[in-house]
Amino acid sequence: MSETIKKIGVLTSGGDSPGMNAAIRSVVRTCAYHNIECAGIYRGFQGMIEGDFKEMGPRSVNNIVNKGGTILKSARSKEFMTPEGRKKAHDNLKNAGIDALVIIGGDGSFTGGLVFNKEYNFPIMGIPGTIDNDIFGTSHTLGFDTALNTVVEAIDKIRDTASSHNRLFFVEVMGRDAGHIALNAGIGAGAEDILIPEENLGLERLLESLRKSKTSGKSSSIVVVAEGDKIGKNVFELGDYVEENMPEYDVRVSVLGHMQRGGSPSCFDRVLASRLGVKAVESLLEGKSNFMVGLLNDKVELTPLEQAVKGHSEIDRELLRVSEIVSI
Amino acid sequence: MSETIKKIGVLTSGGDSPGMNAAIRSVVRTCAYHNIECAGIYRGFQGMIEGDFKEMGPRSVNNIVNKGGTILKSARSKEFMTPEGRKKAHDNLKNAGIDALVIIGGDGSFTGGLVFNKEYNFPIMGIPGTIDNDIFGTSHTLGFDTALNTVVEAIDKIRDTASSHNRLFFVEVMGRDAGHIALNAGIGAGAEDILIPEENLGLERLLESLRKSKTSGKSSSIVVVAEGDKIGKNVFELGDYVEENMPEYDVRVSVLGHMQRGGSPSCFDRVLASRLGVKAVESLLEGKSNFMVGLLNDKVELTPLEQAVKGHSEIDRELLRVSEIVSI
Amino acid sequence: MSETIKKIGVLTSGGDSPGMNAAIRSVVRTCAYHNIECAGIYRGFQGMIEGDFKEMGPRSVNNIVNKGGTILKSARSKEFMTPEGRKKAHDNLKNAGIDALVIIGGDGSFTGGLVFNKEYNFPIMGIPGTIDNDIFGTSHTLGFDTALNTVVEAIDKIRDTASSHNRLFFVEVMGRDAGHIALNAGIGAGAEDILIPEENLGLERLLESLRKSKTSGKSSSIVVVAEGDKIGKNVFELGDYVEENMPEYDVRVSVLGHMQRGGSPSCFDRVLASRLGVKAVESLLEGKSNFMVGLLNDKVELTPLEQAVKGHSEIDRELLRVSEIVSI
Amino acid sequence: MSETIKKIGVLTSGGDSPGMNAAIRSVVRTCAYHNIECAGIYRGFQGMIEGDFKEMGPRSVNNIVNKGGTILKSARSKEFMTPEGRKKAHDNLKNAGIDALVIIGGDGSFTGGLVFNKEYNFPIMGIPGTIDNDIFGTSHTLGFDTALNTVVEAIDKIRDTASSHNRLFFVEVMGRDAGHIALNAGIGAGAEDILIPEENLGLERLLESLRKSKTSGKSSSIVVVAEGDKIGKNVFELGDYVEENMPEYDVRVSVLGHMQRGGSPSCFDRVLASRLGVKAVESLLEGKSNFMVGLLNDKVELTPLEQAVKGHSEIDRELLRVSEIVSI
Repeated sequence: MSETIKKIGVLTSGGDSPGMNAAIRSVVRTCAYHNIECAGIYRGFQGMIEGDFKEMGPRSVNNIVNKGGTILKSARSKEFMTPEGRKKAHDNLKNAGIDALVIIGGDGSFTGGLVFNKEYNFPIMGIPGTIDNDIFGTSHTLGFDTALNTVVEAIDKIRDTASSHNRLFFVEVMGRDAGHIALNAGIGAGAEDILIPEENLGLERLLESLRKSKTSGKSSSIVVVAEGDKIGKNVFELGDYVEENMPEYDVRVSVLGHMQRGGSPSCFDRVLASRLGVKAVESLLEGKSNFMVGLLNDKVELTPLEQAVKGHSEIDRELLRVSEIVSI
Repeated sequence: MSETIKKIGVLTSGGDSPGMNAAIRSVVRTCAYHNIECAGIYRGFQGMIEGDFKEMGPRSVNNIVNKGGTILKSARSKEFMTPEGRKKAHDNLKNAGIDALVIIGGDGSFTGGLVFNKEYNFPIMGIPGTIDNDIFGTSHTLGFDTALNTVVEAIDKIRDTASSHNRLFFVEVMGRDAGHIALNAGIGAGAEDILIPEENLGLERLLESLRKSKTSGKSSSIVVVAEGDKIGKNVFELGDYVEENMPEYDVRVSVLGHMQRGGSPSCFDRVLASRLGVKAVESLLEGKSNFMVGLLNDKVELTPLEQAVKGHSEIDRELLRVSEIVSI
Repeated sequence: MSETIKKIGVLTSGGDSPGMNAAIRSVVRTCAYHNIECAGIYRGFQGMIEGDFKEMGPRSVNNIVNKGGTILKSARSKEFMTPEGRKKAHDNLKNAGIDALVIIGGDGSFTGGLVFNKEYNFPIMGIPGTIDNDIFGTSHTLGFDTALNTVVEAIDKIRDTASSHNRLFFVEVMGRDAGHIALNAGIGAGAEDILIPEENLGLERLLESLRKSKTSGKSSSIVVVAEGDKIGKNVFELGDYVEENMPEYDVRVSVLGHMQRGGSPSCFDRVLASRLGVKAVESLLEGKSNFMVGLLNDKVELTPLEQAVKGHSEIDRELLRVSEIVSI
Repeated sequence: MSETIKKIGVLTSGGDSPGMNAAIRSVVRTCAYHNIECAGIYRGFQGMIEGDFKEMGPRSVNNIVNKGGTILKSARSKEFMTPEGRKKAHDNLKNAGIDALVIIGGDGSFTGGLVFNKEYNFPIMGIPGTIDNDIFGTSHTLGFDTALNTVVEAIDKIRDTASSHNRLFFVEVMGRDAGHIALNAGIGAGAEDILIPEENLGLERLLESLRKSKTSGKSSSIVVVAEGDKIGKNVFELGDYVEENMPEYDVRVSVLGHMQRGGSPSCFDRVLASRLGVKAVESLLEGKSNFMVGLLNDKVELTPLEQAVKGHSEIDRELLRVSEIVSI
């Protein structure tokens, strides 16, 4: 099938993440390396529907390997959920001579790609781009490592002020369905406790842990809370609850928010993006379709997209234990 | 009077700010340079009341010039607002042989110092340490420059994701009474609009400004909002209001929070802290009291503490105009 | 004369510095604000000779306020030193309808501009852009503040390894003719000694200072050396010399090099660039020429370009003293 | 054997690396978690010989997880290479009641540990701490990830100035025997070429690659060179050679130097350090000895120390290919 692919389209979809630009660059240059054409598709599936394409050569992606965000922009597309929308998209791809797609995004984007593939037998390949690391089939999603560094740097700053005032801080980090960011950044930032969606040990245990922390002689404390934790209170209510029950603590709350999605990618994410981009294009050229390229045991591997979408990226239970020990 | 001063106490009080440690280091080493003793007083005025002192020599402050927060910690002290509390504090100082005080902090700390000075004729010198830059008698408070860099770096990250999604972001920064951070960081971060306590042009003007921004072809926008802005809505209500009135915008809100107080100080703040510490100690040794050392026209100058407390640090109106022009 | 100016050209010349892009953005947008045209001139005077111009509107400078380097690029031009070269340049400007120039650069660039102005009575305005801070008529050149932060962050890292091994490090920083970077960054980084072109106290004093540092109980030491120091040995020879004379020290040398010129500008440099750009354009529109816009006593002021070129930016002697005290 | 271990000593040895403090913290707290004592040993094996020990509890390692360098300091010890030295060390350990050792360092430190173990049957466990990533039995050494980020951030800054001036930069990074840093940071920084010890394709190929880069339209270029590359010229000679043979290039050289060893560790290194510290202590408590704890396929695993010392950490050949493709 590789002979039939003369031009690959690349798009970013869903929430942006650091490393997407490095992946775009890699896709574009791998196309050039193999002497096939490449088109950038703006604003994800919506740009496919609107025919918002741009021819891209190796020089189109100069000086973007270190930039956060995505030069191709991202958007949600309700229209792509309709057969009419996908028909338009397909017509545009055909008119532009695009034979295959590299989709950089998360679960939702991959699902959209699968539907499109089923209807039009259009070759697609996925690259996992999201800071949440919640995709099955890869140990690291693009942007996860960068987000962890962003979070620990922010909490390091909060720690300065926390320990100057002997305060207890609740810091909310991203992760609606997955505690990967909270768990890793919590250990990295030396958090006294970490609350994640995958595990709800209840309010009473939290109070106990904080009491222990206090009696152990700690003068300040940080609790890292994933957005999607299941403790039954949002992070502000949680702060109030703890302050009521432990008046010895001066409690503050900080929600790190959208800055977690941005920033210049870490070296890890840039290298990962470069590797995944090469593999995605070369896999398409080998006639493969409906796979996600990912990192497994430090090697770039393919996982069927359906599995990537259905599977669940479990947190590492060892880390929960490590967190408990090192926060003593 | 300089002969009578044999030992200087140094404390940090109020909200901590980057550069406080560099100032402590400078005070301690200037004392050593002039062969007088120095004592660190923990947790501000409260530590004075509790006699929580520590002898400090030049080696006590190794490797802290680049650390955020304050190694002497800070705290509020209700007891110091009472004559009894201040009596205890004075007794402790006398017992420890401390002859003079350097107070690193903001308005409230200086006021406390003035009261103490009046009662006991105790020599004091103030160093302005707060990120808000809201102190009269210095163009820059310790920590202001660092906080500006922290804020623009955070907004740079938010900009990545804002421009990937064509979104409008409201970013709240610190500044309850003063717009210095919002104004400078807003210009630095390329904000489309800036809302500060010193000026309330109303909601209608904001909408108009955002409309103009949209028609000028901007695909994403950032509005920087000082905590203490007077537009009549908190930043979340503001976001909702704008989204209702301008459905063409996809609005997000981010509150940067306490990370603004932390972090390794900028070179500017480290140099400023070093200069102010030297001047504070040497002014005490020259027999001066009740002054604040500050930066005026790039020179270290003394301002009577009473003036520093009563005066108001005005924002630079030129910056408002610059902001309007460069955000076109 | 302001009526005669319909189109302003802007160029960057000489060594690049962080904040140049923010200044370009400010010049371009101030032109738009006043409804006059603006052209970017590539590669400094060489681009003027080659007619390498590009029309720039407010959207041409989106998302560059935080970028290091210069989107207009910079280059040296031998041809511009000849009357023929300048003739070509003038012809190109006239053909392009450009009436006035904003030159962002250093001494050499301003001198070139003055010659050009004399020959063709062409209105010019200078913006001081160089990390060295060696220009008369401004307390801060564009990029100086950023370079200081880059240097102290690098030395902070070196300090980590220096104090882990009890080593003595000589760190060379930029500054061929001026010690501004060395002096400020040296204080900021907590250097034990600072060597600058403006002052040569000789090798013996250096050894003595290091001996004192050792006996005072310091376990590691950093000496910051300006490129242009006059001690008579380059930094590697200096390291060897000290190691020979003080075998108790394990000496290392590090030359920070070109990374000092790059990086995202600090908030200070972005705000300064914005202010200077506005003033440069508005001064041209008011009919002024042959001035440099700069920062004096925190205000934007004009200095005749000839003075800026002839004058010398002195180091602040107070800082030398502060350095001596705080490194005790 | 676990019953016999009542007190573990921990030391850092060899070149320091970011994450060593986080590992110390983890070792100390894991000891506390298991109710055994812990002693910090200063300056590596030399401190063992001198009996320079300090009892450490969980609060001894507060606020160090994010600090570069090593609070236990590091040093070379010639004396430890003699039987007499090791005898002294053993006596001191026995006197202090230390039953087992955790050695954080590289190959040389492990070899020293093995000799000591053979002579005294003293339980030891190694944690790989070096930025070079040149240790067999772990995919990542402590500090490697942080060093990569430090290097790409420095090269990003150099890129700013390189592309402003259309220059060619040779940037030397650490790695005497291994190209891991050069290869990964080279890809991450978007280098046009990468020279590593493991592969010497010769000067002619380099010139060709640079010529291709030039004709492909690139305006600036970065070549990343490992210290230990085998091309037969040092990096300055290399720059001269290329400039002679390709006068169209304006060549500059930058040696990043010791800053690569320092800095606050990345989240990756902090988490890795935490995991390795827990495993090292618990393995000793399980009666194991003479192993190195490392990361293999994202899991913490044990490798016999002898293998770790003898084996060679190969570079990933896939990365060489990725580098060739994405630099097109």
